[in-house]
Amino acid sequence: MLDFDAEIVAIGSELLTPFRQDTNSLYLTEQLNQLGVEVTFKTVVGDTRTNLVQVAKTALGRAGLIIFMGGLGPTEDDLTRESVAEALGRELRRDPDLVAALHARFAKLGRKMPANNERQCDVIAGASVIPNEKGTAPGQWLETEYGGKRKIVLLVPGPPWELKLMVENQVLERLRASLAPAFIATRVLKVAMVPESTCDARIAPIYTKYQDVQTTILADAGEIQLHLRSRADSLAAAQARVDELAREIEDELGGTVFSTAGESLEQAVANLLVARRATISVAESCTGGMIAEHLTSISGSSRYFVGGAVVYSNDQKTAMADVPPTLIAQHGAVSKEVAAALAEGIRRRTNSTLGLSVTGIAGPSGGTEEKPVGLVFHGLADGANTEVVERRFIGDRERIRRWAMRQALDMVRRKLT
Amino acid sequence: MLDFDAEIVAIGSELLTPFRQDTNSLYLTEQLNQLGVEVTFKTVVGDTRTNLVQVAKTALGRAGLIIFMGGLGPTEDDLTRESVAEALGRELRRDPDLVAALHARFAKLGRKMPANNERQCDVIAGASVIPNEKGTAPGQWLETEYGGKRKIVLLVPGPPWELKLMVENQVLERLRASLAPAFIATRVLKVAMVPESTCDARIAPIYTKYQDVQTTILADAGEIQLHLRSRADSLAAAQARVDELAREIEDELGGTVFSTAGESLEQAVANLLVARRATISVAESCTGGMIAEHLTSISGSSRYFVGGAVVYSNDQKTAMADVPPTLIAQHGAVSKEVAAALAEGIRRRTNSTLGLSVTGIAGPSGGTEEKPVGLVFHGLADGANTEVVERRFIGDRERIRRWAMRQALDMVRRKLT
Repeated sequence: MLDFDAEIVAIGSELLTPFRQDTNSLYLTEQLNQLGVEVTFKTVVGDTRTNLVQVAKTALGRAGLIIFMGGLGPTEDDLTRESVAEALGRELRRDPDLVAALHARFAKLGRKMPANNERQCDVIAGASVIPNEKGTAPGQWLETEYGGKRKIVLLVPGPPWELKLMVENQVLERLRASLAPAFIATRVLKVAMVPESTCDARIAPIYTKYQDVQTTILADAGEIQLHLRSRADSLAAAQARVDELAREIEDELGGTVFSTAGESLEQAVANLLVARRATISVAESCTGGMIAEHLTSISGSSRYFVGGAVVYSNDQKTAMADVPPTLIAQHGAVSKEVAAALAEGIRRRTNSTLGLSVTGIAGPSGGTEEKPVGLVFHGLADGANTEVVERRFIGDRERIRRWAMRQALDMVRRKLT
Repeated sequence: MLDFDAEIVAIGSELLTPFRQDTNSLYLTEQLNQLGVEVTFKTVVGDTRTNLVQVAKTALGRAGLIIFMGGLGPTEDDLTRESVAEALGRELRRDPDLVAALHARFAKLGRKMPANNERQCDVIAGASVIPNEKGTAPGQWLETEYGGKRKIVLLVPGPPWELKLMVENQVLERLRASLAPAFIATRVLKVAMVPESTCDARIAPIYTKYQDVQTTILADAGEIQLHLRSRADSLAAAQARVDELAREIEDELGGTVFSTAGESLEQAVANLLVARRATISVAESCTGGMIAEHLTSISGSSRYFVGGAVVYSNDQKTAMADVPPTLIAQHGAVSKEVAAALAEGIRRRTNSTLGLSVTGIAGPSGGTEEKPVGLVFHGLADGANTEVVERRFIGDRERIRRWAMRQALDMVRRKLT
């Protein structure tokens, strides 16, 4: 039984350009963490043999589990097999079964196989082959000693769909069997419309008491995610700790917590609308369709979403949502009154349970001293009452629009909760 | 004068979780490439001194320019200074001028400085200080020998805004002065609605002739970016080569190229609408507001965007865009006829120059044998003519919606070009 730290090595010259990034390692890290394996190093290296050998030797010297990702294809640029073999001081052997299977695969497609494709059948001496269900390049699994220590060395493909299938179906169980048992529990809480600094100031006194639970705070416009993770001597003990911390945080943050099972704000709103058999329509000015886009991003959204109006001009506020021109003239398009009229108008027009509206100044132009960039009014009408919320958001156009979208969705959530 | 390869070391335990990723290195790589410096290794390491020292030694052993990014703050977790100093075998010296400036900064804010903040004033012996305009942690610049070779070692802060300001205002000029002059030219072409494999099959015979120009192909739903980069003995020569290749590619791809200066498809459409003094309205079904959201993502969009209707239900197609119920009954909501009627209806309703529509099945549910998931009709009406395009997109809900959005915008672009 081993208790390991891991290094992930991502291979490919394109990952050293300004345009592409290794994102597979996030997925791999999540899977490894679930097994109790911490990732202590990540390295990116190009398709250059000397560099690859150097990186492989370094990784073998400092981590227990080393995952080499990518560079397993058939082209001259795919050098992972020979480089790792060289770093280990082992031979590569062409596997006749793999060669036969590869030829059969090409024959079945009625295509002639280019000769260099056979390179994919080269296996490091002592390694076992991990079949690739989605592609031609198999993975490899090697348990060995290096510098007097036991190591597990994995070669896995770079394309995400090939990688995920191989990891889920063939790597995780085998890894679990090689490792000391780890009992890890996780929870994700999501919080709406609380500034990150406020959130942290309120919950830091709580989570710092839980030294055995790792708490990660991720903030986006109008949404904070709290990732809790605990390791203990049993799954029940680990679960109890994250649940206990989650409960304390929920008590502190109250109704701002909208998700305890990972769902998005729009999914939470959708669930509530479906549960209440309610429908919704939206009239958006500065968010420009973003609220409708989020509400309809969920499959089956036709059950609750009736219609949306993107009412940029004053004329359209009147034409599509029946806002009286006099109201706009009197209070301005960005006003409490117009937000209310928009919500009420779109609700009546579309005959929905709820009417939701946004009108504001997303900038960077269009602000005044009285009505600055970032000022947004949000309206929610149910036929009997209309609620209006005024907010002043900070940031660029995109960020202000995202805050406003989340504020609008959160009003619906609070109303239906 | 030096001609260097670089290693970027990103420091921070949060970068080894499944949640956060080093993205600064993409920005740094772009800046370094412009100076003729290639990034050959990227490493991520946590806030652990032994690991940091190990990574620093490895980087010093294999790269000419080593950029350590992050871990310069005041807390106990910020170990970059002492770890790099240890790897180099140099002392840290507390800089009295920096200490005085830091105290003055806190005094000015009327706050008492925590004692451990002085750690930020520790400078590696021989290094010069790079002031931080946005934060308290200064950067460091050291030119040294390591393993008999000349090295430039940089310590820069992790927060992106601090990093960018420091790099742009203080690092790049100094690096340029230390390096052999590099003459590098770049171009970006963007291509709409061509599948990646088709695009590559058409242009590979062209770009492979240009061994001296690096061509990178990045594909998203409905959009391909071609990044061209050339290095030569003079800027004019480098520019001539990328321009020549760009011209050949443009000749081959023709009107599918919508951008030669980096602008997005929605920006290209916005520019054309403004130039033609044309306005537009949108009636969207399966894209659910995504088209309106993109058209209004640009500041000043009120000049051309009149209104949008998100018409999910059949009723709303009639109510908001005057589609005759009989037409929907006869042909179905997802049909050529309804796409045309939506475009014409929203144009008339809002009195805009152009009416744009989308109706389709984004999935994963709702498909039939006759009308499968991915089938989308797009309409564009100008009052005299209405054009309808039928497409079958492949992918998940999000991907189908993005393809449909880009197809709709591209129809407007083609019409106005």
